[in-house]
Amino acid sequence: MTDYLPAVLEALDTSRDSAIKRLFEVLRIPSISTDPAYKGSCRAAAQWCVNTLREIGFDAGLRETSGNPVVVAHDSPCNVGGKPHVLFYGHYDVQPPDPLNLWVCPPFEPRLTVEPRNGEVVVARGAEDSKGQFSTFLEAFRAWKQIAGELPIPVTVVLEGEEECGAQNLPRFLAEHGEEITCDLALICDTAQWDKDTPGITLSMRGIVGAEVVLTGANRDLHSGQYGGAALNPIQGLARILAALHDSDGRVTVPGFYDDIPPLRAERRRQLEALGFDAAAFLSDIGLSRPAGEPAYSALEQIWLRPTCEFNGITGGYQGVGVKTVIPSKASAKLTCRLVSGQDPHRILLSLEEFVRSRAPKDCSVEFRVDDDGCPAFGFDPQSPYLDAAAKALEEEWGRPPVLMGSGGSIPIVSSFNQKLGMDCLLIGFGLDDSRIHSPNEKYNLTSFYKGARSWARIIDRLARLSYP
Amino acid sequence: MTDYLPAVLEALDTSRDSAIKRLFEVLRIPSISTDPAYKGSCRAAAQWCVNTLREIGFDAGLRETSGNPVVVAHDSPCNVGGKPHVLFYGHYDVQPPDPLNLWVCPPFEPRLTVEPRNGEVVVARGAEDSKGQFSTFLEAFRAWKQIAGELPIPVTVVLEGEEECGAQNLPRFLAEHGEEITCDLALICDTAQWDKDTPGITLSMRGIVGAEVVLTGANRDLHSGQYGGAALNPIQGLARILAALHDSDGRVTVPGFYDDIPPLRAERRRQLEALGFDAAAFLSDIGLSRPAGEPAYSALEQIWLRPTCEFNGITGGYQGVGVKTVIPSKASAKLTCRLVSGQDPHRILLSLEEFVRSRAPKDCSVEFRVDDDGCPAFGFDPQSPYLDAAAKALEEEWGRPPVLMGSGGSIPIVSSFNQKLGMDCLLIGFGLDDSRIHSPNEKYNLTSFYKGARSWARIIDRLARLSYP
Repeated sequence: MTDYLPAVLEALDTSRDSAIKRLFEVLRIPSISTDPAYKGSCRAAAQWCVNTLREIGFDAGLRETSGNPVVVAHDSPCNVGGKPHVLFYGHYDVQPPDPLNLWVCPPFEPRLTVEPRNGEVVVARGAEDSKGQFSTFLEAFRAWKQIAGELPIPVTVVLEGEEECGAQNLPRFLAEHGEEITCDLALICDTAQWDKDTPGITLSMRGIVGAEVVLTGANRDLHSGQYGGAALNPIQGLARILAALHDSDGRVTVPGFYDDIPPLRAERRRQLEALGFDAAAFLSDIGLSRPAGEPAYSALEQIWLRPTCEFNGITGGYQGVGVKTVIPSKASAKLTCRLVSGQDPHRILLSLEEFVRSRAPKDCSVEFRVDDDGCPAFGFDPQSPYLDAAAKALEEEWGRPPVLMGSGGSIPIVSSFNQKLGMDCLLIGFGLDDSRIHSPNEKYNLTSFYKGARSWARIIDRLARLSYP
Repeated sequence: MTDYLPAVLEALDTSRDSAIKRLFEVLRIPSISTDPAYKGSCRAAAQWCVNTLREIGFDAGLRETSGNPVVVAHDSPCNVGGKPHVLFYGHYDVQPPDPLNLWVCPPFEPRLTVEPRNGEVVVARGAEDSKGQFSTFLEAFRAWKQIAGELPIPVTVVLEGEEECGAQNLPRFLAEHGEEITCDLALICDTAQWDKDTPGITLSMRGIVGAEVVLTGANRDLHSGQYGGAALNPIQGLARILAALHDSDGRVTVPGFYDDIPPLRAERRRQLEALGFDAAAFLSDIGLSRPAGEPAYSALEQIWLRPTCEFNGITGGYQGVGVKTVIPSKASAKLTCRLVSGQDPHRILLSLEEFVRSRAPKDCSVEFRVDDDGCPAFGFDPQSPYLDAAAKALEEEWGRPPVLMGSGGSIPIVSSFNQKLGMDCLLIGFGLDDSRIHSPNEKYNLTSFYKGARSWARIIDRLARLSYP
């Protein structure tokens, strides 16, 4: 087997300017999936991915759904018998950029800038999550094809367009196209590395369920002078429900919420402790001084291994400039629970709904709106033969072994790949905690971008040298 | 003294179409004082009032303030020695019309329509509050001037433009122009009648103070996967504070809140009970079934004679379509307290601020924003010689004596007229509880409009026949 790797890595190093140019192209497309107004932009981003994959040499196309289309591409080199067929996953949709006024540049006009801690970074919505991330493997494919003429393993690419909005059309897509995309291994590039100089492989991810709680009191907004004192205020009812959802220790009070969670293994706690995670620095970076969760768990455990019930938004009554003496008819809140191993999304949603409904004040009607089924937590099999290959490749690129991490986030498709299609999933990403994903001024380190692409080139090489497990 | 009254009343009856035309003119001006974007419209409404008063024969003009101008007009007939000089008060500013989608017609395109209970009504923002209301006395002036050539008493008119937004510039206006507008009696036409067929005189009004509470946690919006569990959520902190502001009986828990309120007099309770107020119907009209306030007080007492702490608006995090898995940096709520006799606005605000600050979670900064000083409650002197005159006039027009009411609302200028300028104030209005003021589809009964104008014509006549007290 010819050793193309050195030349592939060199090709990546010499094509950095054009790689940045390509990244900027896709960052300019405002593919906000959560807002229907950007449906056309989502399709444009999908089409950009198809064109780019075709240019690299893939057989690429769109698979339509009721929402945004899924990009699917294949590359099947000759003479790869016995080599693992690998799926690469990313998503081309992004979070809404608001609040816009806090951005240093328009969110869809990417800008290169230098940060003291990170060196050169790209600033834009999606710079990391996940346009920057999936561009790392696209660049690796490009270099491999350029140097070797073909990839050393069969590869399928899936880039979805509804990761940031609940992935409602995913079950149907998987039912219709599951066979086409099922591989031996899925590589998910949507997670973080340990720190800017140390790679990471993520072994667990939290699941998620979400709901919107809408309380309605009077049949219209009321004058607070004319009715105040005798008329129910739904903001008050909502505040009481939300306030009751956690005890004073930050523990979720929904009955049964923690019942199915196995105790945290002492060994895993020791592993995490050994990481020397600097919780004070982590919090201080966001302007906080103390972990807000259950005191019995470290900050890292709170984020990676403990579930949450989080309030993502609340709204009711007058929110404009000045005063309006109104008793609103409605008040509502958006909630999401991050789930850990053992928790059943459906059961958690039912318990949460029961909790909310049982606490609604008399004279108040409650809507408990659920858009999708959510997804359970994901745990990676540490015995997988691919882990060692990927870890070695990362160590070669970064000069140190990857940290075996957890993740507090949720990638619904990972659960589906794992549970519905039976694929082993390796979560390797080059994001960083300070990248402000989902926030104004999202950025991606150029180190992550360049070394990420080189890491994939090496991982592909290592996987090609594995015999089929 | 010539008895012009029958002819004045007839003139009012024959000029109804042109009166409606004039009312529609001023209703078309979107004079929303709480939103700076409508500053120009507020001035246009003020100028409309000046022009109309000049046309009637008043010496009218604008008195500038740092905000919206105040309309001041005088009419000083000859030979009125010994007759009371009367101030008429209204306001030309209106509440914001949102939510716009709930209006049956655009809020600033007035429409005549028929309601089963009320007969013909005008629908528009400000139809009652208070463009319809102040138009009743403008029409009465017009008819008097048309028939008698002059008013039988000296009259001053004050129409302000910041009643709906806290009247911040009022103290300075009163300091600068107090002497010019001080009369023997102020007649305030911004309150309700008892029911659509029964007039009312309001003997007490609640005061008001307001504040906006802003909680800030992290220095930016955070990804709920990356930080959820360890990062403080300011929506939670805010919900806990709001939930703690009332006990389970609806009683405000701010220390000292009720301390200075004298016990409700047994006689006043009996008076109120004798009114036979149908609390069930009052609440059922707005879709509620039970009074939400302190159980020891009737619904009418809760609204007229007990203080409140009301949540007028709440906001934080993502409020758009779909899901955004964010932990917001900020959450805020707008609060107003309605005050009753004995409560000092300044002391209440201080106690409320202390309550909020003492309950803010660690790691959370609190802003307690107060735009103005608020105003204390107002109580009318039942011994005033003008009460009998007005009551008789109303009884003649409506065929039944006026109910001596309370009001849960607040008109800051009433306290100022009373406490700063030493004027006795009579609150006589023709509003109705079902008029949806401050809500979509605000209306004014044409009965209120026509008979209101006739009532003022009669009251002016009665006051002219009083000897100077």
